[in-house]
Amino acid sequence: MTGGMEQDIERLVNNILDDYSRDGQIDQGNTVNRLDKGAIIELVHKLQQIIFPGYFKNNKYRVYTVKNNLSMLLEDVLFHLSRQVEIVLESMEEYADRSRAELEQLASQRCVAFLERIPAVRQLIGTDVLAAYDGDPAAYNTEEIIFSYPGLYAIMVNRLAHELHLLGIPLIPRIMTEYAHGATGIDIHPGATIGKYFFIDHGTGIVIGETTVIGDHVKVYQGVTLGALSTKGGQKLKSRKRHPTIEDNVTIYSGASILGGETVIGAGAVIGGNAFITTSIPAGTRVSIKNQELRYEAGKAKLHSMELRQDDTWYYMI
Amino acid sequence: MTGGMEQDIERLVNNILDDYSRDGQIDQGNTVNRLDKGAIIELVHKLQQIIFPGYFKNNKYRVYTVKNNLSMLLEDVLFHLSRQVEIVLESMEEYADRSRAELEQLASQRCVAFLERIPAVRQLIGTDVLAAYDGDPAAYNTEEIIFSYPGLYAIMVNRLAHELHLLGIPLIPRIMTEYAHGATGIDIHPGATIGKYFFIDHGTGIVIGETTVIGDHVKVYQGVTLGALSTKGGQKLKSRKRHPTIEDNVTIYSGASILGGETVIGAGAVIGGNAFITTSIPAGTRVSIKNQELRYEAGKAKLHSMELRQDDTWYYMI
Amino acid sequence: MTGGMEQDIERLVNNILDDYSRDGQIDQGNTVNRLDKGAIIELVHKLQQIIFPGYFKNNKYRVYTVKNNLSMLLEDVLFHLSRQVEIVLESMEEYADRSRAELEQLASQRCVAFLERIPAVRQLIGTDVLAAYDGDPAAYNTEEIIFSYPGLYAIMVNRLAHELHLLGIPLIPRIMTEYAHGATGIDIHPGATIGKYFFIDHGTGIVIGETTVIGDHVKVYQGVTLGALSTKGGQKLKSRKRHPTIEDNVTIYSGASILGGETVIGAGAVIGGNAFITTSIPAGTRVSIKNQELRYEAGKAKLHSMELRQDDTWYYMI
Repeated sequence: MTGGMEQDIERLVNNILDDYSRDGQIDQGNTVNRLDKGAIIELVHKLQQIIFPGYFKNNKYRVYTVKNNLSMLLEDVLFHLSRQVEIVLESMEEYADRSRAELEQLASQRCVAFLERIPAVRQLIGTDVLAAYDGDPAAYNTEEIIFSYPGLYAIMVNRLAHELHLLGIPLIPRIMTEYAHGATGIDIHPGATIGKYFFIDHGTGIVIGETTVIGDHVKVYQGVTLGALSTKGGQKLKSRKRHPTIEDNVTIYSGASILGGETVIGAGAVIGGNAFITTSIPAGTRVSIKNQELRYEAGKAKLHSMELRQDDTWYYMI
Repeated sequence: MTGGMEQDIERLVNNILDDYSRDGQIDQGNTVNRLDKGAIIELVHKLQQIIFPGYFKNNKYRVYTVKNNLSMLLEDVLFHLSRQVEIVLESMEEYADRSRAELEQLASQRCVAFLERIPAVRQLIGTDVLAAYDGDPAAYNTEEIIFSYPGLYAIMVNRLAHELHLLGIPLIPRIMTEYAHGATGIDIHPGATIGKYFFIDHGTGIVIGETTVIGDHVKVYQGVTLGALSTKGGQKLKSRKRHPTIEDNVTIYSGASILGGETVIGAGAVIGGNAFITTSIPAGTRVSIKNQELRYEAGKAKLHSMELRQDDTWYYMI
Repeated sequence: MTGGMEQDIERLVNNILDDYSRDGQIDQGNTVNRLDKGAIIELVHKLQQIIFPGYFKNNKYRVYTVKNNLSMLLEDVLFHLSRQVEIVLESMEEYADRSRAELEQLASQRCVAFLERIPAVRQLIGTDVLAAYDGDPAAYNTEEIIFSYPGLYAIMVNRLAHELHLLGIPLIPRIMTEYAHGATGIDIHPGATIGKYFFIDHGTGIVIGETTVIGDHVKVYQGVTLGALSTKGGQKLKSRKRHPTIEDNVTIYSGASILGGETVIGAGAVIGGNAFITTSIPAGTRVSIKNQELRYEAGKAKLHSMELRQDDTWYYMI
């Protein structure tokens, strides 16, 4: 390194340190006891190994019985998750007066409560695997779904994160679901409540908001938004029900948007591709957009527009 | 670790072991000879190094001639891919009576046949690089495309996976394309047949179904679905042609959906942004949605709506 | 390895070497001094640690003061970035006559100039964090935004890449933004100019083209395209303004497309979900699509269509 380069680095370091010392929005808070995002993502991988025994190799542990492997995984998850939960609780106003030992115990209790939910979560995810197999003609077998379907992955992470959310732990579940969002293009807030046999096909672009409630046997395709009508209110809307309710056996085809906290899609309804829904739909109703008006132009001569008229039948997009 | 913690872990382990022993949907099959997803993804990385020599560094092998590097890569791919293919073949009903040695040989033969297709696949991918350069004013040079275009990556993985698919190997090609889907937001089923000079721009949200057939010189933009009309039939629709045929020189702008196994988009057709197409379109036709009816409201006074009327010209979205 | 296998590999290697020697599109250029994509991605991670001190752990460096950590990060970034910039400059026609030493110095100067912009970039990103917190009722606190919001990540990478773009460095900024595209589903070209307090919510499917200009306090939701009207011209359109201008305080709801280099969305305008805009919109105007015509069919009896009519109110999708 030349002398000039050394001076450059010294100057750059001082510039940026000056900037840090201005204590802007992105430099606040406790930088020592900061959450460890990498550790939280590692927890997702370990929980996946617990959920699907045998599917996702764990090259770190060279143990050969299911029980030993599970013990090591669980101990590991409990240790690291407790540490992260403790950091979160410490930053919450309602625990401001707790001692370090109390926080540690509280964190540990919540993590044990979370891990006690694993069998129940596994049962739900088992229904999701079946729903994907039954619903998708392109599925070769359930193994293919577990190994490769992004929809199943996003649902798995949501079901785990939702349990942490129910235990009153903020931040960590959102880091988990946004990790899954990055991996799959499917954005499900940990607050969303989702019933059994949930099937997401393709999935890229799906958004399911914080206060959405979804029943059993619901199918959702790529690009669907279950969203809010407006966010003009910003933080003032916090914890208000802003997202729709989807009852049992509803199918929502790709690109459809269903908006608003009072919007209820009744049991068995089918929402066609690209439909834009802002009011409740009665049970059993099929909704589709009317045929789009399209313009056709041939290279040389005008075509008979009738030839090109699309059938006015029910269609959905997958 | 405290005594209480040890008891907690013991109890949690037993709960989950009990749950495993119930042998639900997600615990079936051969857990010893399970496919290794990590190994399959590693194969994609190595195949990319073979396809684009010199572009993607291989820090593991410190060899300095192209030939030595290629030999090591190929040997590596052949070894690991054969192992995975053998696991897949073993699980297939039609090979249930084969001995271990026969399966091993069969797997090895298919992998050699796959690798013999590499020059042909490279030639196709070369046409895709050119198509991207010619079609995108934002492309700086072909190197930029190879290094950074998600569309090219998704096409490369599809072309490789499609060869495995044609060799009658299930599961592995889908794990490859779903890996690319996660990396790019572009979901192309390994069954899709794609001609030369294929260009995907931006790409996020694209879905191209299993039985789609695409000709030469086709361009597809972000959010396009080449899909099925309905999946109500579920597994009963398996292997039926459910997705459209796109002939040569067709351009499909962003957000368009083309649906149904009997839908044919004729050579040279142009499908405008957001069009929803469920019937065949003759060769050379340009299709666009009619201008949307929009509502305008000014902050204080009503605007002259005429001022705001959009030109009734052909437009596409990119 | 059996003798047959050895022969197979020998033959496969020779086939592919023959193919390499044909020097097709994907084998051109300097394969020795090729850019290192992995190194460029590593630079993004290190720059993120500099932007958000304390948030993203750096387990490699076991240093305990902010200053030492920053010095090591900066030295590292300067060293590796200079190397990559030098490779890029070497391939540019305008520097064809420069000596190795001159190129090295030029690369180093540009990298120092880039790093001098870090405090300014940090200030902008600070405004983006605030905009996300103020705009999203689901945001728990700013820490959650920094840790998990894909929109913030994509903006951060764009702001860094844009500085390199302004310094006349091609390829590297695009590799950075396409890496962020893969991680988030948000595709922002490094050429796009973006003002303060920019908020992207959810984000999957967003495309913001090379010549887009965005003012301050702009909000954009998932699936929005700020695009070109046509790319038929291909490379001939290079460096022409092809993408829209969005003035201050504009909100663009999900799925909307705004197209064309002469399209200007005036200050304070609100563009409703799924609107397709190809002409300029005056300041302060609210635009939404008229209610879609939907078809409803009940399971057994026809419904009163009036009951289902959606309110003709302003609505947006989030």
